[in-house]
Amino acid sequence: MIKVKVPATSANLGPGFDTFGLALDLFLTVEAAEAIKTSCRFTGEGQDQLNQEEEENIIIKAIKRVFREAGETAPDLALTVNNQIPIGKGLGSSAAAIVSGVLIGNELLDKKFSHGQLINIAADMEGHADNIVPAMSGELTTVMEDDKTVYYQKIKTPADLKIIIAVPDFQLPTHKSREILPEKADIHDTTANLQRACLLLASFFNGDFSLLDIAMDDKIYQPLRKQFIPGFDEVLNQARAAGAKGAALSGAGPSVIAFALNREEAVGQAMQEAFNKNNVSCRIFYLNPNHTGAVIF
Amino acid sequence: MIKVKVPATSANLGPGFDTFGLALDLFLTVEAAEAIKTSCRFTGEGQDQLNQEEEENIIIKAIKRVFREAGETAPDLALTVNNQIPIGKGLGSSAAAIVSGVLIGNELLDKKFSHGQLINIAADMEGHADNIVPAMSGELTTVMEDDKTVYYQKIKTPADLKIIIAVPDFQLPTHKSREILPEKADIHDTTANLQRACLLLASFFNGDFSLLDIAMDDKIYQPLRKQFIPGFDEVLNQARAAGAKGAALSGAGPSVIAFALNREEAVGQAMQEAFNKNNVSCRIFYLNPNHTGAVIF
Repeated sequence: MIKVKVPATSANLGPGFDTFGLALDLFLTVEAAEAIKTSCRFTGEGQDQLNQEEEENIIIKAIKRVFREAGETAPDLALTVNNQIPIGKGLGSSAAAIVSGVLIGNELLDKKFSHGQLINIAADMEGHADNIVPAMSGELTTVMEDDKTVYYQKIKTPADLKIIIAVPDFQLPTHKSREILPEKADIHDTTANLQRACLLLASFFNGDFSLLDIAMDDKIYQPLRKQFIPGFDEVLNQARAAGAKGAALSGAGPSVIAFALNREEAVGQAMQEAFNKNNVSCRIFYLNPNHTGAVIF
Repeated sequence: MIKVKVPATSANLGPGFDTFGLALDLFLTVEAAEAIKTSCRFTGEGQDQLNQEEEENIIIKAIKRVFREAGETAPDLALTVNNQIPIGKGLGSSAAAIVSGVLIGNELLDKKFSHGQLINIAADMEGHADNIVPAMSGELTTVMEDDKTVYYQKIKTPADLKIIIAVPDFQLPTHKSREILPEKADIHDTTANLQRACLLLASFFNGDFSLLDIAMDDKIYQPLRKQFIPGFDEVLNQARAAGAKGAALSGAGPSVIAFALNREEAVGQAMQEAFNKNNVSCRIFYLNPNHTGAVIF
């Protein structure tokens, strides 16, 4: 029996489009046992709302993909899935599912592939690497993709960092949130985002969050994406007013992530009230960064 | 008598356009003494080729600017300048001149302005902050400008890092090198550069230079700017072949900066030979990062 536990992830963090991803201590857990017929028992986030076949398929597709890369055929498996990661909310649920599948596949293949090879396979399945890498590796990661190969560096997250995530009760498919992105960006916005992303990364490295708020102020993507999220600006403003050091859309949304060093309950409450005021019900998650990445038991 | 010593700086480092700057242990030194009539004695880099009045003026203009900001009039000064920084080569000679001036002005005003205020004044004079901040603060810096205010974080440079700079014997005015930049950038190139810049920054933080070479591979600016630098690609390729961990245009050029952990003489020689092969004569500088920034004696 193989058991894997994969963290949720929050990508972008404002200006770090397709680049930054932060692992969170909220997990997808999958147990796999060889069986006569493939099956999947699914509990937790998504068990009611989701077509279970669909989520099951991502994990199984990833297992099959790893076997195909090895030139072999995957065995039938009985999967037992427990999922804490809200689905379709910009918290890396599909990346977690893919990572769980490639890790199970690789275990069944006696660790045929390296960590780096599994990341390349998983990123190819997902279409981008910003959630895949932190789901595999933990911490804050900055990825670079070139010619189907993923490169990355990992940044240790400060111990005192508190993460607050507001998860609205509606889904926003990633493809819808990506479709509206422009083909070209004004060079001034490009520079503004580059400067902000680098300032954000250095703030994390230096453990200095005095500039985090302006560093997270994305000039290209959020201004387009926020049309899908009622009350977005107000949620960010209220989070800041309540003490958040910075806030941004989580991945493609609709969740909003905020960082704080203290008063995290006040921040969460302010975000919830701002969403409610805009007729959006939401849940608030208080999380810590995940330091280990995916774990195989 | 006031004496200031300001380091040369190399901006961009590939993808970090208008964002990254690295201070170098190569200096502009200016002594200022009150006098009946303003004068400037200039020795070192630029003393033969340059209209001395011009370089003199940048320093004096910066002194006058600081006094104007304070609502006062600058006194006449006798300046004694020694300059090690090649002029018009992409090594921050104008930023060093401006920084020397604002620091002298501020000393004469009994330190009326803070470090941050002086950076804002100097960046406004220069038009951008990427050379100004490391010239003031030392080390590798990542800057962000918003509404005439400069924000930055400083990154300690690894102790074992060797810097090699090839300085061609021709000048490339910054405005010429900036004029050809596009108004819009393809979103894929924007993302590629963002990913590379963040990978570069994290590589410096982690002291891990295994990915520095691809991290420095700018997709937007260098491909346009290299038309002004005969043999540019060959210089980079030969630097890498000789052991450089990464190489890029220094600022707006025409100098090329390379990083190495050892074999720096081989890298410098390879760069010189590649330039010579393309009928460009050049000098090679072997430098260390500057850790202190501008110093007032």
